[in-house]
Amino acid sequence: MGKIICTGLGPGDPDLMSLRAHRLITQATQIAHFRKAGRQGQARRIVEGLLRADVAEHAMEYPVTTELPFDSPAYNDALAGFYDLWAQKLAGLAQGADVIVLCEGDPFFYGSFMHLYNRLQGIVEVEIVPGITGMTGCWTATGMPITWGDDVMTVLMGTLPEPDLARHMQAADALVVMKTGRNLPKIRRALASAGRLEAAWLVEAGTMPNQRVARLSDCPEGDCAYFAIVLVHGHGRRPEAVP
Amino acid sequence: MGKIICTGLGPGDPDLMSLRAHRLITQATQIAHFRKAGRQGQARRIVEGLLRADVAEHAMEYPVTTELPFDSPAYNDALAGFYDLWAQKLAGLAQGADVIVLCEGDPFFYGSFMHLYNRLQGIVEVEIVPGITGMTGCWTATGMPITWGDDVMTVLMGTLPEPDLARHMQAADALVVMKTGRNLPKIRRALASAGRLEAAWLVEAGTMPNQRVARLSDCPEGDCAYFAIVLVHGHGRRPEAVP
Repeated sequence: MGKIICTGLGPGDPDLMSLRAHRLITQATQIAHFRKAGRQGQARRIVEGLLRADVAEHAMEYPVTTELPFDSPAYNDALAGFYDLWAQKLAGLAQGADVIVLCEGDPFFYGSFMHLYNRLQGIVEVEIVPGITGMTGCWTATGMPITWGDDVMTVLMGTLPEPDLARHMQAADALVVMKTGRNLPKIRRALASAGRLEAAWLVEAGTMPNQRVARLSDCPEGDCAYFAIVLVHGHGRRPEAVP
Repeated sequence: MGKIICTGLGPGDPDLMSLRAHRLITQATQIAHFRKAGRQGQARRIVEGLLRADVAEHAMEYPVTTELPFDSPAYNDALAGFYDLWAQKLAGLAQGADVIVLCEGDPFFYGSFMHLYNRLQGIVEVEIVPGITGMTGCWTATGMPITWGDDVMTVLMGTLPEPDLARHMQAADALVVMKTGRNLPKIRRALASAGRLEAAWLVEAGTMPNQRVARLSDCPEGDCAYFAIVLVHGHGRRPEAVP
């Protein structure tokens, strides 16, 4: 009787995986990972070249991604059925040997695995291996500390309504905005109305070979990659020599 | 001519260090780390047993920690002088070979190294290796996802004034409060006035052998360890089967 181990892979550079994640992945006989239908998927890409030759791979393909609104009953039903199905499948697979579930970033931080995690409670043993979050990789890529001293940092999803975004953007010192993509024009307007647009950075593919870091105000209007992250650095208390 | 490489060590369990950090640390001929005077220090403890026998170790001992108020001129002067001195020393040491600076968690997330980082710009090459943040280790330790769907997550320092804490605690879904220690009674009052006390958890030494996880309302009144973290989990949108 095996267990299900969800391992955070970190922000993208395989060298930023934890020792424990690396050991589990290179020894795995069964792996599973989420992906958009027809794509290789970012999680699978990170472990390219690390897997055993005889590993059994299970791609969990989302039935829907951005085709339906997040808050529609149809979206909810499709995703709930998908998670129900895969919770059952993974529990079955774990009868034979451990199943390593690959997860970009950290599993408990806005990860998809938590929907399986909840469904698997009491059915099979589940273990979580934390990872470096995508946002950590992105702020490292900017070459500037994200938070200092007593800075307040707020993490926002670009899917939130514009007034909510603007309100939170005004209240915090440091900002992280995820789920950007087609929400970027809205995020830009919210930043502008909160007076934070000039200080904002856009990081695409942080820590990966195709990494791009730019001031948001220098980026073309319009959408960006869904996994790009918008950052505003804090500037809290810091001991400086008095002149 | 070497460089200075600050490596995040992750939340405490050495097995959660990144592959890159582990390689740099085990090969290092010079390391440096912060600590309170007279203590071994958490960063040094994490790498125990990993270092070369001939490594040169440089303990950067804070001239002051909690003896003076953070906002006093004396505190500012002491710390500024300390960072000036060590920036100079590290730049000198890096003439010979790379210096690996050990940093708990992630260097750019409320880390002390950033005060050296700023001072070293233009003087010597500095590289940052991100790490799993302490908060990530702590929310993994609770066995519950910290954020779901569109949750807003805010990170607060317990050193903030009580009304500021309470205001931010009310505005966010998920909460992380760091720098607890003697600020815990104030944090508790702020959580209560924001209506979040019953949902709060206290995690001490997350991912370490002496890890303790408890509902804050079950913990004795009074202070806690300085590195303990208070968490409130978010409960955002999640696709569930409609009954």
